[in-house]
Amino acid sequence: MKRVKICLAGPGNVGKHFVKLLIERNELFKKQYGIDLQLFAVAGSKGGVISSSPLDLEKVYHYSSQEPWKSYFPGYGIDDLKSWQIISDSETDLLVEATPSDLKTGEPGLTNFKAAIKAGINIVTLAKGALVTDFAGLMKNAAKQNLSIKFSGATAAALPTVDIAHYCLAGATIKKISGILNGTTNYILTKMAREGVDFNTALKEAQKMGVAEPKPDLDIEGWDTAAKIVIITNATFGSELSLKDISVAGIKEVTLERIEEASLKGKTIKLIGESGLENNRYKQTNQDIKNKVFVKPLALENHHTLARVDGTTKAIHFETDIFGDLTVVGGKSDPRAAAAAAIKDIINLARERF
Amino acid sequence: MKRVKICLAGPGNVGKHFVKLLIERNELFKKQYGIDLQLFAVAGSKGGVISSSPLDLEKVYHYSSQEPWKSYFPGYGIDDLKSWQIISDSETDLLVEATPSDLKTGEPGLTNFKAAIKAGINIVTLAKGALVTDFAGLMKNAAKQNLSIKFSGATAAALPTVDIAHYCLAGATIKKISGILNGTTNYILTKMAREGVDFNTALKEAQKMGVAEPKPDLDIEGWDTAAKIVIITNATFGSELSLKDISVAGIKEVTLERIEEASLKGKTIKLIGESGLENNRYKQTNQDIKNKVFVKPLALENHHTLARVDGTTKAIHFETDIFGDLTVVGGKSDPRAAAAAAIKDIINLARERF
Repeated sequence: MKRVKICLAGPGNVGKHFVKLLIERNELFKKQYGIDLQLFAVAGSKGGVISSSPLDLEKVYHYSSQEPWKSYFPGYGIDDLKSWQIISDSETDLLVEATPSDLKTGEPGLTNFKAAIKAGINIVTLAKGALVTDFAGLMKNAAKQNLSIKFSGATAAALPTVDIAHYCLAGATIKKISGILNGTTNYILTKMAREGVDFNTALKEAQKMGVAEPKPDLDIEGWDTAAKIVIITNATFGSELSLKDISVAGIKEVTLERIEEASLKGKTIKLIGESGLENNRYKQTNQDIKNKVFVKPLALENHHTLARVDGTTKAIHFETDIFGDLTVVGGKSDPRAAAAAAIKDIINLARERF
Repeated sequence: MKRVKICLAGPGNVGKHFVKLLIERNELFKKQYGIDLQLFAVAGSKGGVISSSPLDLEKVYHYSSQEPWKSYFPGYGIDDLKSWQIISDSETDLLVEATPSDLKTGEPGLTNFKAAIKAGINIVTLAKGALVTDFAGLMKNAAKQNLSIKFSGATAAALPTVDIAHYCLAGATIKKISGILNGTTNYILTKMAREGVDFNTALKEAQKMGVAEPKPDLDIEGWDTAAKIVIITNATFGSELSLKDISVAGIKEVTLERIEEASLKGKTIKLIGESGLENNRYKQTNQDIKNKVFVKPLALENHHTLARVDGTTKAIHFETDIFGDLTVVGGKSDPRAAAAAAIKDIINLARERF
């Protein structure tokens, strides 16, 4: 039995779903994979817990978003350490990074990542911030320490993206990747096209349905898609892009007229994140990158597999040499599925490393 | 640098493409994956070669289908050993099994598999025969010896199927798998639906295009699809099915009338291989299995992702709990892509084992 000692940073929404999945499935995972996932530490924004034995998961699930930690976890609750300090002191094998991350500064994920790497802890992340600000630096430092960083939860979660490139297409040269990587914007564009409503009406409906957030800017301005394509591109092509390196346009300017005009030409408008950085270890001018890695609304021919991907469904399309083209469609878009993506990464990391 | 010493059994069509890919890509693989793939032995139906140093790949590519082996490979060419004997004596790490295999007897693959396992050699197979006759026995014996068997090349090749279940959906419970797993039959059904031609006309056209073989029975009677779904099912659900355990119907009886009738109801007829064996280590009566694992033409609602998969394109659809539904579409259907699937398996096996 392989035992994985886990530290969870960010016991909020997705973090709680992660704990819930451990509660429900760990016995199954022991039988199915010979892997025992044990939670030894939790790092919140204002303290957390570090334990010398596996934490009571039910207790973590119920009390991890309450404070002060000392009163709920007497003896090992901590109220005066930052999350990176808890990670440093946790003596765990693996950090699950689920903090709400800022795409510009990368924080608090970036500091948490650095603390984990310094302490010899592998990382499975659901947060994008650290990876879109210093992907190359973090990967190099992790490699020096012989540590793995996996990030399915930060790259479309239940829809496999980097896994496909890394595992299912091993040996092929990938020429181009394009994806519908954000469910909210795809829902809005689908609604506009099908029901003939304008952007604002579709957005309001999406918010009412819980598909769009009250503050929807990260999604509708394309930044969520951009963060995902930057990470997927770096992981696949060995590039060293940050979020600021690529050109990003969202769907605010997509009018109903433009959608109808495209439709008359047998086309469908989708918000596409695309990367055509064919070569590994790609070094080019910024202008080359902006042309080859971008996020923008594109009018796709209706027979293109991505044109038919509707509603909140996501999809990714790979153009390769020896394997031909491959499209992957689906995967749930909810916090539980995001947590499941972290579980997947942990299982695969344990298979490879433990 | 990880070195993998390879024995190739079956240096025919796909086998030659495999050697060609090694010639073209091994330098790239060394850099990209830190893996050096070296061919040390070739086992043909009437002899082969065993070498104590890496074989000259160009020479193997050009002369491996000629005989006698001794005259083309003086000193180490062998004309009087069977393929399993060459495998046994090869002192290699990995067998690439690319012999034309019989789906009923499993031979010559079955004997080759057994020889490899006995000699402590991992297996990457492109042939289905051994796996549809004694999947469970082979897997158990390999596990006892701590050996891996990978079989992407036997389960839709460039379309990832078992990789998705094993790697991309790790941690999820897969509830149902259904696939369009054979390009020839999908081409014929698509042609009938689009052009309103009958089965025989569509088959003849497919043969003219090189999409169907002169003897097309394995494809059109559903046995190729059946072999793939049997292997995928065993690998995913831990079942121990052989080809004879499941019910199989092909497309010979699909009339143009039936296709048109389905079309009027908003449906499309596809040859589907399906498995609904939800539980791991599934033990049921034969009748249960026949109901839950089958190959037959099904009328799918047009909005089903598989209904839109046309021509020679293949696809597989997974229903899971925590990841939701996932569909993978594409992958080339030619001998070079099949050889590429073996390369992929070798790279992943080397990552895990070497």
